[in-house]
Amino acid sequence: MDKVKIIEVKESIFADNNKEAELLRTRLKEEKTFLLNLMSSPGSGKTTVLMRTIEALRDEFRIGVMEADIDSAVDAEKIASTGVKSIQLHTGGMCHLDAGMTEQGLKELGTEDLDLVILENVGNLVCPAEFDTGAVKNAMILSVPEGHDKPLKYPLIFTVCDVLIINKIDVMPYFDFDLDKVREYAYMRNPRLKIFPVSAKTGEGIDAWTDWLRQQVNEWNQA
Amino acid sequence: MDKVKIIEVKESIFADNNKEAELLRTRLKEEKTFLLNLMSSPGSGKTTVLMRTIEALRDEFRIGVMEADIDSAVDAEKIASTGVKSIQLHTGGMCHLDAGMTEQGLKELGTEDLDLVILENVGNLVCPAEFDTGAVKNAMILSVPEGHDKPLKYPLIFTVCDVLIINKIDVMPYFDFDLDKVREYAYMRNPRLKIFPVSAKTGEGIDAWTDWLRQQVNEWNQA
Repeated sequence: MDKVKIIEVKESIFADNNKEAELLRTRLKEEKTFLLNLMSSPGSGKTTVLMRTIEALRDEFRIGVMEADIDSAVDAEKIASTGVKSIQLHTGGMCHLDAGMTEQGLKELGTEDLDLVILENVGNLVCPAEFDTGAVKNAMILSVPEGHDKPLKYPLIFTVCDVLIINKIDVMPYFDFDLDKVREYAYMRNPRLKIFPVSAKTGEGIDAWTDWLRQQVNEWNQA
Repeated sequence: MDKVKIIEVKESIFADNNKEAELLRTRLKEEKTFLLNLMSSPGSGKTTVLMRTIEALRDEFRIGVMEADIDSAVDAEKIASTGVKSIQLHTGGMCHLDAGMTEQGLKELGTEDLDLVILENVGNLVCPAEFDTGAVKNAMILSVPEGHDKPLKYPLIFTVCDVLIINKIDVMPYFDFDLDKVREYAYMRNPRLKIFPVSAKTGEGIDAWTDWLRQQVNEWNQA
């Protein structure tokens, strides 16, 4: 396993997280760095989707990754094996990242020479949705085994995300998962949501997702 | 669908949650009511495990269920269809329940005539682990699709639980999940953990889990 840098990020000192997030986005705009905040439940396949995303876009963009976890460095080690710049953020038990914590991570990662930074947030459908990290876009993954009723139970995360990636569609035959229903429930929460069904395992559907992300990064960095 | 009672539980007014939890446990002991706190990620199959548990124990115990969610009543409606006493708790966006919130729920449920109450906590591996609800025992579910590395990433919940139910073992052939590794990692966090691999879908392994729970309820209520 590759050795990765582990950063202990501290709870933000800023009283106004939204303002801090806006300041961070403004700085990222000036630096021509696109920050994607990727959220999901534990075990939905964030890291595998990320590996596929890196594979698809690494020839076009200089990519960096921040893996946030309560503990361990298993994800950052996987990402480091792809050769892209990556660090592990430990949240000291906290269930989310805010803009100040994201900024501490970006500082350690170094963003001057990066076009695209992906933040893999703590695995959790509740708390991460409550804090603007300063990301340009928010994406979430819902995996087939979790069930199609999740937009009913965890409304906020579906509301704040620009993209819903539905992962593990290769195992759809073994689960009682209704793609039409999840679309219906997700659009109830957020009619503007882009939905991409994928299998990070087989690669199915990954192109549509990375085409969307490519366009977003180009728009942000070239405007 | 059966209509269920929905209770909005409010953040606890008690400064010392641990003390409040102890007081609640003492009261439950006097009332001969066993409270189980069931935790897991979203979509790990808490409600299906619960349905199987009710099926196995309903002839021996008078059972009540509290379903905690940010929103919706889909789980409580499923439970109500089994005929056991159940209510839905809404946490007003909060990612966990504490002892005070649990007590509000128990009061609405009414525990005098119940031997066993199961609290289905908010789907989340981080925050619920930080708050003693007053339960007699804590159980968590990890499902096969989530992966065997979860004890490395979410240490606290494995530490505070008495039982780890590994659910969805029927889909093991379709996932890269190592049962020996998850046991090894889980015992690193908590050597006293009882581990029950089950499939709530097929019923495999449910007996071992409900045998353990039956014994715990009998010990608590008869002592």
